[in-house]
Order: sequence, then structure tokens, then C-alpha cells
Amino acid sequence: MAGGGGASATDMVRLRAAGVAVQIDAAFDRLLTIPDDARDRLYEAMRHAAIGGGKRLRPLLVRATGDLFNLSDESVMRVGLAVECIHVYSLIHDDLPAMDDDDMRRGKPTVHKAYDEATAILAGDCLHDLAFEILADEACHPDPFVRIELVKALALSSGPAGMAGGQMMDLEAENSRFDLPTVTRLQNLKTGALIAFCVDAAAIMARIPDDRRTRLHGYARDIGLAFQIADDLLDVEGDAVLAGKALGKDAAAGKETFVSLLGVERAREQGRLLVEQAKAHLHGYGPEADLLRAIADYIVERDR
Amino acid sequence: MAGGGGASATDMVRLRAAGVAVQIDAAFDRLLTIPDDARDRLYEAMRHAAIGGGKRLRPLLVRATGDLFNLSDESVMRVGLAVECIHVYSLIHDDLPAMDDDDMRRGKPTVHKAYDEATAILAGDCLHDLAFEILADEACHPDPFVRIELVKALALSSGPAGMAGGQMMDLEAENSRFDLPTVTRLQNLKTGALIAFCVDAAAIMARIPDDRRTRLHGYARDIGLAFQIADDLLDVEGDAVLAGKALGKDAAAGKETFVSLLGVERAREQGRLLVEQAKAHLHGYGPEADLLRAIADYIVERDR
Repeated sequence: MAGGGGASATDMVRLRAAGVAVQIDAAFDRLLTIPDDARDRLYEAMRHAAIGGGKRLRPLLVRATGDLFNLSDESVMRVGLAVECIHVYSLIHDDLPAMDDDDMRRGKPTVHKAYDEATAILAGDCLHDLAFEILADEACHPDPFVRIELVKALALSSGPAGMAGGQMMDLEAENSRFDLPTVTRLQNLKTGALIAFCVDAAAIMARIPDDRRTRLHGYARDIGLAFQIADDLLDVEGDAVLAGKALGKDAAAGKETFVSLLGVERAREQGRLLVEQAKAHLHGYGPEADLLRAIADYIVERDR
Repeated sequence: MAGGGGASATDMVRLRAAGVAVQIDAAFDRLLTIPDDARDRLYEAMRHAAIGGGKRLRPLLVRATGDLFNLSDESVMRVGLAVECIHVYSLIHDDLPAMDDDDMRRGKPTVHKAYDEATAILAGDCLHDLAFEILADEACHPDPFVRIELVKALALSSGPAGMAGGQMMDLEAENSRFDLPTVTRLQNLKTGALIAFCVDAAAIMARIPDDRRTRLHGYARDIGLAFQIADDLLDVEGDAVLAGKALGKDAAAGKETFVSLLGVERAREQGRLLVEQAKAHLHGYGPEADLLRAIADYIVERDR
């Protein structure tokens, strides 16, 4: 139990995450009504991937940052839904045989196992579109300038300068010996960029100017890296049943990770330091930032 | 030479398309600067697919509709670039072994042949993001409301209610005996929706209200179907070298097409009727609609 967070932080996060998960599941259920034509299989595949699973950490981060600015539940939920569309699409594509070749995800067969590869590719592509459709809808936010800023930020954080670029580096990691700065850059793109979007999106909706988001950006960068270090530790030490997916894959693929480069103890220590640093960025805030603080603690304490 | 178009229409289209192609190639060249890190292969794959090939019909349609409203060259080019990003991403994914399994595209090896499947999946995903990044940038159009309407329209026309949904129906066509209304619906989604976006996008940029776009929507629907009928005819009768891709694949896969359902002669006649109908929608316009008229003629007269 590091950094004074402990069980209460985990409980707070689990409680709020459960509420967010109910909202996200209900929204996906409405969004993905199965049509009465030959696209039914496509929608079933999207539902399989999107509904009932995952920690919903990204929508929770939008909610937690939204707490700072009293953002409406509706706006926060819709942006969380959009970012979850991107996250789920990326999991579907990353799990494909040509990519990481995973059979299990969130305790269920991956989409290409439950359906087939073509359906999995298209289900991912469709969730990718739905993310932008959700942000463009005025129900997301009444101000079109805010909506277009959200679109721009999401496209940047999920594309070649963000998540997908990081996944490309991750594929190359099997054939290269990446050093610590390169692994850090890889992870900043692959997982950090979308996590940073969640925090940034709330600031965009609250119309906070970019130059007044420095501390929030620092928080997001630190928890993004801490999250990946915790993932690398779980890949070595975790429980595959709890994780709902195969573990130990990085070592088997010969990829350098924070754990392979730093060792278990130094990696764990680095994760704790990053969490303390993340929370330090929130010093100017009161109890309205408690969920953000609890998320930082939870990220390195989670068992899945 | 049907419908009074003839050689001059083809010449006009080829001339304007050549100008648009130069702009689009130059824009992709700037957009896809190869980074000095492990993402270089990803960018090379995107460049392989995006630069120097294709008819650039979709950007040309944005330009042609833009002629009606005196839209700026810059706005028209950027929207054309965004729609071409979507078109190229869809070709990369559709060509994958799990989908249509094609080795040649635009006279070159497909991306998964020239690189590998994982790189092809990610290159498609990245072009998908770049489309929305381009539309969200203020260089596309100064009015954020226009930009967000463009994002919404593109997401709708490329996602499960549009292009990707149509591709799913197309995959199912191998296992089903689709009738003419179902093939029509499939093609309205698979190719029609993105063609309709090109025309609609120009009207959005010119701030033409939706209820005053009926004739343009009629034009787009008719040329979209005529385009697909011509494609089906080329698949049966065309020259694979000119087409730059394998032909005769639909019949081999046992898919119903306009040609298999109507026969060659009735399909050709239907294509001509649609072109006449498309041009009839433009009766209220003068010479500013000549490129739109020429495109309609070209669509059924092209040899590739």
C-alpha cells in the first residue's frame, strides 16, 4: 500500500468506476442496436467487445477531471464513451493474429476468435468512426468549437503521433533492443496519449486555456507511465484469470519493458515515485481532486 | 459514348483530375513526413498506399461541387484529402488476407504484400485518424460549426451506417444469395455513402441548409450507383493492367452483383439511365455544374 492511498483509494475508485461502467454499458447498448440486415454480425461483434468488461479507467479519468470543473454528467459520459470506443477498437486490432495474436481479452474470447478476422477488423474500424460521431454530436457539448477541439485532440492522441504510432513501435520492439528512453517514448505514445486525452478533454470542455493545463498534463503524463509500469509488473507477476488475458507475453516475445530494463524492485519504486509526483501536480486543488488522487494510487495497486 | 458526354467529358475530367491529383499527392507528401524513429515503416507504408495512384475521384467530386459555390481551393483540397484518407484506409483494410485478399492495388503490391499485415492494419488505422485530424484543423474551414458538421458527416458515411457497414454486407454476400434491392443497399453503403459525403461536404462548407440539398443528394445517389455498376462491368469485361488490380473476383467468390443479377446489357443500360438522371438533377445550374456533369458521364465511360 504505497503513498498513503491504500484500501480506501482502491475502494473509492472501484465504487466510482462501477457507476461509470453502468453508464458506459447502457450507452453502448443504445448505440449498438443490432440492425435487421446483413450487418447484424458486425454489431454483435462490436457489442461483444464493447459491453460488459474492462476497468473503464479512461471514462473514469474523464469523470474525475470533470469533478474539478463541475462538468455535466452527460458531457462527461459521452466523451468517456468516445474514448472507450477508441480503446476497444485498439484492443480488437491489437489482438489480431497479425498483431499480438491474443485469444482472450477481458475474460472472453477475443473478437476474431468469437467471430472471425474480417469481422474483427471491421468492428474495430466501426468503433473508430463511432468515437468521432459521438464527439461531433451536439449532445456531447453545446459549443461546436469545444466539440471540434475534442475531435482534434482525440485524432492526434489515437493516430500515428499517439496510440497507433506507439503500437507500431511496440511491434518493432520484438526485433530491436530498445533502451529506457525509447521504451518510455513508446509507452507515452501507446498508452499515455489516450490517458492524457481523457484529462485534457475535461479541460477542453471547461474551456481552460492550454497554458493553464500544465499541472493536469503533468498529472496525466505521470499516471500514464505509472499505469504502464504496473502493467509490465502484472505481465510478470500477475494472475491471468484476474487479468482476463494471457500474461508473460512481453518476455516471451523478447521485448524490453520497464521491468526487463529496471528489474522488478526498481520498476515498482519508479511507479510509486510517479504516483507521488502525479499527486503533487494536484496540490492546488481541494477535495474536488480526490478521485484523481485515488486513481493515481489505484493505478499501481491494482491486481488486474 | 452515352448521353452526349463522350470524349470531351472524359478529357475534361482527366484534365481536372490530374490537377487535383498533383495537389493531393503534394499534401500527402507534406502530411506523411517520415519520422526519425521506429515509426518510419508505418509512415512508409502510408506513403506507399496514399501517394501516386488512384483516380482521385472523391477529391475531384468535392472540387466539382465546390465549383457551384465558389469554395476556396484550400478548403476543397483539405476536405478532398480527408476523404481520400478514408478511401485509402478502406482499400488497405479491404485488401487484407482476412478480407478480399488482394495482392495488387493501383498497379502496385498491396500494403500487406509490400510490408506486412500488422503494418497494413496500423497504416489503415492511422489514415483513418488523419482524416478527422485534417477536418478538425482550422485550415480546413474557418467556422468550427462547419468543421464539426464535416466530421459528423464523414464519421456517419464511413462507419457502420456507411462504408464499413457495406463492406460487412459485401463479406456476407459470399454466403448469401442477395437480391437486387439488397445489392443496391449494400452498394449505397459501401461506395455510395462516401461519394455522397464528397458532394454533401461542399454544400456544408457553403452553409447550404440540408433541405436545399435534395437535388445534390439525388445526383450523388445516382452517380454512386452508376459508379458501382461500371465497376461490376469492369470486373467482368475490364483490363486488369489498366485497372491495376485483379478482376473477375466477384464471380469467382460467387457474389451477386448488378451484372450477375441484370446481365451485361441491362446493367450497362441501367448505368446510362442513372447518369442521365444524375445530370437531370443539375438542370437548375449553368456552366458551373459542367464538371459535375462530366464526372457523371466519365463514371460509366471509364476503362479503369
